[in-house]
Amino acid sequence: MAITVVGSVAFDTVETPSGRKERCLAGAATYFSLAASFFTDVRIIAVVGEDFGPTEQAVFDAHKIDTTGIQHAPGKTFFWQGSYLENLNEARTLQTDLNVFAGFEPKIPSAYRDSQFLFLANIDPVLQRRVRETTPQAKLVAGDTMNYWIKDHKAALLEVLRGLDILLINDTETRMLAGNSNLVLAARAVMEMGPRMLVVKHGEYGATLFHKATPGAPESRTFKTPAFPLEQVTDPTGAGDSFAGGFFGYLASQRELTPGAFRRAMFYGSVMGSFTVERFGTERLQQLTREEIDHRFKLFRELTHLD
Amino acid sequence: MAITVVGSVAFDTVETPSGRKERCLAGAATYFSLAASFFTDVRIIAVVGEDFGPTEQAVFDAHKIDTTGIQHAPGKTFFWQGSYLENLNEARTLQTDLNVFAGFEPKIPSAYRDSQFLFLANIDPVLQRRVRETTPQAKLVAGDTMNYWIKDHKAALLEVLRGLDILLINDTETRMLAGNSNLVLAARAVMEMGPRMLVVKHGEYGATLFHKATPGAPESRTFKTPAFPLEQVTDPTGAGDSFAGGFFGYLASQRELTPGAFRRAMFYGSVMGSFTVERFGTERLQQLTREEIDHRFKLFRELTHLD
Repeated sequence: MAITVVGSVAFDTVETPSGRKERCLAGAATYFSLAASFFTDVRIIAVVGEDFGPTEQAVFDAHKIDTTGIQHAPGKTFFWQGSYLENLNEARTLQTDLNVFAGFEPKIPSAYRDSQFLFLANIDPVLQRRVRETTPQAKLVAGDTMNYWIKDHKAALLEVLRGLDILLINDTETRMLAGNSNLVLAARAVMEMGPRMLVVKHGEYGATLFHKATPGAPESRTFKTPAFPLEQVTDPTGAGDSFAGGFFGYLASQRELTPGAFRRAMFYGSVMGSFTVERFGTERLQQLTREEIDHRFKLFRELTHLD
Repeated sequence: MAITVVGSVAFDTVETPSGRKERCLAGAATYFSLAASFFTDVRIIAVVGEDFGPTEQAVFDAHKIDTTGIQHAPGKTFFWQGSYLENLNEARTLQTDLNVFAGFEPKIPSAYRDSQFLFLANIDPVLQRRVRETTPQAKLVAGDTMNYWIKDHKAALLEVLRGLDILLINDTETRMLAGNSNLVLAARAVMEMGPRMLVVKHGEYGATLFHKATPGAPESRTFKTPAFPLEQVTDPTGAGDSFAGGFFGYLASQRELTPGAFRRAMFYGSVMGSFTVERFGTERLQQLTREEIDHRFKLFRELTHLD
């Protein structure tokens, strides 16, 4: 089944202990689309400027990503510059130029209307909500957010959460959103806000899938995936978006959304995140093969399974 | 097979967001012994003062822990006071009274001489080494240490590491000991110092078992266990020592130390740590049953396994 994703396409300049890279093709929707494209058809909604040319377009085309929903606006593409020199786990933002993204009005092409899987990448919750409301056919809706929206746009975010099946956020954001330092209690509180599942990302420690308890299904279905132990993390940018792409892409490829499918989706999410950070920007995703993905999935199993 | 453990027996006064508890029976060797006693015979080497009475002795006796090696010295037992009010993941030490521990000279009772499993809990590496040298029969030797010894007593610690099969330390200590911020590379560097296996503890994120690569066995045997998602962490003290007790106790109970035995030992370690933090001090370990342990082991499997 096809996924529609709405979010940012950007150019990033990044410095990490491994070096510096100028204007990598990046943005949450780019990472997500590339990662998900290994599993299913992906349709992207975003806005780019005049500096987005045939080279960038070719990256999406090579992965058969439908870019009908990418609007081309006068001006420059969203630009972000960050540094991981002090802390590989958290970027220090050096510059953010919203550029054409400042006036982004997501429009859903009619060809996207039958997408049953919708992913709302990390953008203004007002836009997330608008996209959600105009895709009533979606049978599984997942989304991402960040501390900025939790802190300063909570009311709008809470509206979005009511329309989500699955929210993907990190530890700190979960605790912040719930106002509870215990992760289990915080996760439960966040699920009371709407989503029936929560994927909490722990960075280098993997991720946890929480389910809302129902009479027929106790909460013990919590599932954990580790992160792959990597000898070199070149650029952590996009790990979470790639996780989301692998996770949601795998789900969309399944005929039935069984509990086992969600567990495997967590593994595929972790696998895709682990590839992304091996090189700058989306370089690694651009060159990845399905064989490499399946091989690493197998290593994840060995990493965690008793037998 | 019996384990001999050398380390501290102490009284702890602890304050956490859940409350305050005065003079809990604690100390690394106490947590370790109690946790390991569910799996195998345990023999302890430690020193206590005159305030260690029949009540404390009864705790060891109830778990059939051999206390022949506990020396009774004039004065008071080692006392530690700490607070987790600011950070549940890291204690702030408010008071440390070494008391009788200051003059501790470990003596190995002759009845302990046939112990083939030796655990050197976190004490002065000079003492760890002395105990190691006087137990040449030990076929599997594991040990723990802490940042203090890594920073200020590194030479003595390096001598200990040469005599260890397995070292158990946390993330920060691994990076500090190796001088490398990448955990995989740091783990490899630490194993070059002696131990052929390294258990890196990640606190609320579980633990990773690293193996030294050999021609016949690639390093990919790395194994991860999560921590159990708990709704309330009452007192984190002793989680690592309890992990060590579960891990090493399970190994000592096995006829053969297969790769599968090490994986299950990681799970049992995590299980024992998760029980300990549910109550203050060793309270939870004192009341635990083997049935509860095996039930939680099963939950750990569900938490991580695809099928």
